[in-house]
Amino acid sequence: MVEDNPDHGFIISKAMQECLPEVKPVWAKTKEEALCYLNQCEQEEWESPKLVLLDLYLPNRHDGWYVLEKIRAMPDALGKVPVVLLSHSNDRNDIAEAYERGCSSYLVKPIKYDDWLEYFQTLRVYWWETVTLPKVNVALF
Amino acid sequence: MVEDNPDHGFIISKAMQECLPEVKPVWAKTKEEALCYLNQCEQEEWESPKLVLLDLYLPNRHDGWYVLEKIRAMPDALGKVPVVLLSHSNDRNDIAEAYERGCSSYLVKPIKYDDWLEYFQTLRVYWWETVTLPKVNVALF
Repeated sequence: MVEDNPDHGFIISKAMQECLPEVKPVWAKTKEEALCYLNQCEQEEWESPKLVLLDLYLPNRHDGWYVLEKIRAMPDALGKVPVVLLSHSNDRNDIAEAYERGCSSYLVKPIKYDDWLEYFQTLRVYWWETVTLPKVNVALF
Repeated sequence: MVEDNPDHGFIISKAMQECLPEVKPVWAKTKEEALCYLNQCEQEEWESPKLVLLDLYLPNRHDGWYVLEKIRAMPDALGKVPVVLLSHSNDRNDIAEAYERGCSSYLVKPIKYDDWLEYFQTLRVYWWETVTLPKVNVALF
């Protein structure tokens, strides 16, 4: 999870605990923290994340694009990891550009906690119980 | 929907009718048909598909990779369309390569019709009700 807003980070952690209790989330609060963690995964041969939840405005959208670009340029399993963009923005240019730059899907952040819970329930059913993810060097993230 | 197996095409159409009745599926039976349709979307300024369900073995996996590669090289909305790979193969190399080549997610085809229905229910909740797709030139597909 890459999220610079502490309130959103807290809500996401709580919703994940409720909907995906077997997942160990790793919370990076800046683009530097996120890339440092992923580079360490590669160098130390740690288990790679299974899914990346990436806030777009970190605090500018250029920061989100930068993280996405760096991830997609990483070798092997890391470069292929599904990246789900989470953003308050429902600007059509942001959404179109996100898919163009290789995000797996784009989610507009909800307002109410119940809607966050519903989002994470859906993420669970889709990414954990329906889709098959690459088995190479996969970890719970 | 790009599917060369008539039985699977029939099952998918039936499951879509049940779970996504507002969607108008377009069934391409070969890679040539799929690319011809997508090229026409571009040239005739038809509405683009919202989502592509792509069988990998058409009948060889090179055919599936070829379609995916051609889609990703298309301009604007067409090149960004989420492509969900559907395949009987749960070979780890196929799965890893699919993500490497830019599929949005990889689904192993189920056996029983009830499981197909469940898959399409999940696709509906995820792609239609949760995720935000690009708004440029979007059609029901």
